[in-house]
Amino acid sequence: MKAKIKITLKRGVLDPQGKAIEGALASLSFTGVDNVRQGKYIELEIDETDKTKAKAKVDAMCQKLLANTVIENYEVDLV
Amino acid sequence: MKAKIKITLKRGVLDPQGKAIEGALASLSFTGVDNVRQGKYIELEIDETDKTKAKAKVDAMCQKLLANTVIENYEVDLV
Repeated sequence: MKAKIKITLKRGVLDPQGKAIEGALASLSFTGVDNVRQGKYIELEIDETDKTKAKAKVDAMCQKLLANTVIENYEVDLV
Repeated sequence: MKAKIKITLKRGVLDPQGKAIEGALASLSFTGVDNVRQGKYIELEIDETDKTKAKAKVDAMCQKLLANTVIENYEVDLV
């Protein structure tokens, strides 16, 4: 089973990387772009056929290692 | 309109960051995890109501700035 994990900064947490991208886009004359936020995207294969068990395992991975839950949210898609 | 962009390394391109995550997961006793790949995830708001135009604009941004199309693929979702 494949897990696709999106890790994003929580609303209200400053995102200097996103701000830098926003500035770069403006300097390349892309106008009307706002609220740029950069996060992480992780794909992994997990040796588990049961969706519930796989979800629980990936949740544990996110909480223990992949995301910093103080400042980040994560979203898991299993395919 | 909100654009959600996933940027991933192309198949065959070495991903040391993914390998590091794989090693860290193994050392935390998460077994059965394979093929970890790390990419980038960017969210932005675009001042455009027409989906086709917005897609074209975001594609241009990806090709010019956000993704390195020699080694990376990108995927755009508009919501």
